Amino acid sequence: MARQDARVLKGFRDYLPDDMILRQRLTDIFRTVFERHGFEPIDTPTLEYLDVLTGKAGENEKLMYHFEDHGGRRVGLRYDLTVPLARFVAMHENDIVMPFKRYHIAPVWRAEKPQRGRFREFIQCDADIVGSSSMLADAEGISVLADAIRAVGLPQAVISINHRKLLEAMARLAGVPEDQAGEVFRAVDKLDKIGTDGVQQELVKTGVTEESASQVLALVTEQGEPEGLLDRAARRLADIDGGAQAVQELRDLARHLDDLGVDRRSWKIDLALARGIDYYTGPVCEAKVESPRVGSVAGAGRYDGLIGNFLGRDIPATGVSLGFERILEVVREYNLLDVPSAVADAFMVYLPETITHASRIVRDLRETGLRIDQSIMDNRGIGSQLKTADRRGIPLAIIPGTEELDRNEVSLKNLRSGEQIQVAIPSLADTIREMANAAQQPR
Amino acid sequence: MARQDARVLKGFRDYLPDDMILRQRLTDIFRTVFERHGFEPIDTPTLEYLDVLTGKAGENEKLMYHFEDHGGRRVGLRYDLTVPLARFVAMHENDIVMPFKRYHIAPVWRAEKPQRGRFREFIQCDADIVGSSSMLADAEGISVLADAIRAVGLPQAVISINHRKLLEAMARLAGVPEDQAGEVFRAVDKLDKIGTDGVQQELVKTGVTEESASQVLALVTEQGEPEGLLDRAARRLADIDGGAQAVQELRDLARHLDDLGVDRRSWKIDLALARGIDYYTGPVCEAKVESPRVGSVAGAGRYDGLIGNFLGRDIPATGVSLGFERILEVVREYNLLDVPSAVADAFMVYLPETITHASRIVRDLRETGLRIDQSIMDNRGIGSQLKTADRRGIPLAIIPGTEELDRNEVSLKNLRSGEQIQVAIPSLADTIREMANAAQQPR
Repeated sequence: MARQDARVLKGFRDYLPDDMILRQRLTDIFRTVFERHGFEPIDTPTLEYLDVLTGKAGENEKLMYHFEDHGGRRVGLRYDLTVPLARFVAMHENDIVMPFKRYHIAPVWRAEKPQRGRFREFIQCDADIVGSSSMLADAEGISVLADAIRAVGLPQAVISINHRKLLEAMARLAGVPEDQAGEVFRAVDKLDKIGTDGVQQELVKTGVTEESASQVLALVTEQGEPEGLLDRAARRLADIDGGAQAVQELRDLARHLDDLGVDRRSWKIDLALARGIDYYTGPVCEAKVESPRVGSVAGAGRYDGLIGNFLGRDIPATGVSLGFERILEVVREYNLLDVPSAVADAFMVYLPETITHASRIVRDLRETGLRIDQSIMDNRGIGSQLKTADRRGIPLAIIPGTEELDRNEVSLKNLRSGEQIQVAIPSLADTIREMANAAQQPR
Repeated sequence: MARQDARVLKGFRDYLPDDMILRQRLTDIFRTVFERHGFEPIDTPTLEYLDVLTGKAGENEKLMYHFEDHGGRRVGLRYDLTVPLARFVAMHENDIVMPFKRYHIAPVWRAEKPQRGRFREFIQCDADIVGSSSMLADAEGISVLADAIRAVGLPQAVISINHRKLLEAMARLAGVPEDQAGEVFRAVDKLDKIGTDGVQQELVKTGVTEESASQVLALVTEQGEPEGLLDRAARRLADIDGGAQAVQELRDLARHLDDLGVDRRSWKIDLALARGIDYYTGPVCEAKVESPRVGSVAGAGRYDGLIGNFLGRDIPATGVSLGFERILEVVREYNLLDVPSAVADAFMVYLPETITHASRIVRDLRETGLRIDQSIMDNRGIGSQLKTADRRGIPLAIIPGTEELDRNEVSLKNLRSGEQIQVAIPSLADTIREMANAAQQPR
């Protein structure tokens, strides 16, 4: 028989059942968190017109999968979830209600060089609020972020918060022309890595005077409780355009976070935080897991200029993006979620002499909501069937022997411990539930 | 502000929240049904090498979205879930356990002419068993089909069952050469539409003698209980190659279905059923909703020749495919599922004087698992906020007035009926749960 070549494109992945069970579990958790906060699901097409995806500036086209379709249209695979949201809001303005709170969990595609932990197809997991400029909306986003981190059990994650306009005021303080402000952001963003001396050098290299660089450094190295830190920042930026407003918004944000019960230990103001994405216009946040040092796992921020591109007028928006693939890695590496090794709670052994009776038991167990894998191995002995069930990670096996059935019982075998007990059929469902919980094999 | 053009490709769709809530609900139901039967989830890449997707014969390439990627590779968007399964089994043979029971719910893409109810991007929803030639496996597939139909509440769906080898025997009975057998299948498959005279004419047109055509018609118009019908078919096909085996397999299948408790009223043997797909080799099934006449909603069948294409040896396989998009339409049209109009159970009104207290109540309600949308409309009055919540379809609103809070109460308003009550805060969660269930607006 001629054999066809079986292979997968680099940067793309198959998900085997144990991968997929974990991915579904994480998706379910994030979906629950989003919905608990009143966000509603949407989805958009995988393929869009290329000019929709690239925007006015034709950005990122190089990193997009794009081609000409059968009708000669230039189309591309979804690159992120934010641009489609902007297009969605413009098209459905009359069918949605503002402020519009939506979440979107879906794959995106990027023609990047695959690396460890970086793929060409991966899940993005975003929740955004469109149509509100209130800091209540930003607080809601951060509350979602904190809730998601807690729901997954990420240890010691800290959310750093800054404000894009505060960074801009800082660049003004440093006397840097508007169009070079980005270089200042990028320099201070390295504070963690290269220290104050390093940042000082970088700033001077970009043309900032020694004295201005020191002022910027004094500002971004402020530590402490939000109120005191923001008071000191306000004093330093008192004469700088936009500084006072940014500080006031962060004060409001801090107050709302307290109101929403977001634990003070889970977030801090970090005036050195820049975040890469250009379109942010207000508060920006990043969640990092410090110990173990896994780094950034999620981000959030306000971007008042982007959503309106398709509508022709600005619409305020703020959102959070959970790093699904990164969080998944951490969950797997540190075994944070108690995810079963198999879908089935129990396996029903096939015995030719009792198949009718056994099938009825399976049907009744399934009716109670249990997940039962009924053996279809009618050409194998009990031992071989049990081995297969065990290899699949199913915790329990039911053996429907004739004698036991005559006593209205079955044997129930714990495939992990090997322990085997007799169970009366009327209490079988409850017993399976108890034992399956205890016997689930760790992944 | 320059405005970017917002549009969606023909044949592709945005899903608004109420669409998406229903789609997720249906996905959850099918996932539960599959898992109840011990099927495990997998996923495969959206993009594959084009030669993987098209197979040895280069089939369907015209209907595929395909292009050259940045590395000059010929790639395409997933066209179905069966070919990727075959590729998956070959690549992960050592990591999966046979018989392999997997389900896969994922979008596929086809560059077909869009029509009413037919899209270029749509969900497929398959469960397959790979590595078993037992009729127990086919029965499990049909049991999944029956369970899915029941779970969605599809009224009066009937599963027709036939056997590909029985159709082939029938073509032999008609004296038709092997390579023209398909014409016989297609003719008898029209029995419902064109009646016995029509089928007789079609058969004669394809070169079947009048007498053979009558024999075929006598066979495919057999009605009645499976046992009698199959006995009569066995007699008619006694001398025909393959006929006896096909009848025996259908007898085994019928017995297993009884054992599994699949209601006899939900299925029938229909010897005229052909099903289009070429690769079937054993039992084939189709679920049709007769009243209302919505037609085919799902199919199933055995295909022992396909999975082995990548492995280089035959592997038996059988599977069921639920017509997700079709079923969704029926569910929506006949309002079969009680799906809420909004994600949130209740809306918390913003009042500047009680925002701190209100936020804490929201946090506590969310802790109990309730989905609470906290208002971020700090620039609007109560009336306007309530109107917005109602337009979003949220059933209840909490009004945290100062006086009520002083009495440890809040007002709870049913946005549908307008009724408003005072609720003590400690019993608020329970009251919301009761009232939200009763007040959910029908979609």
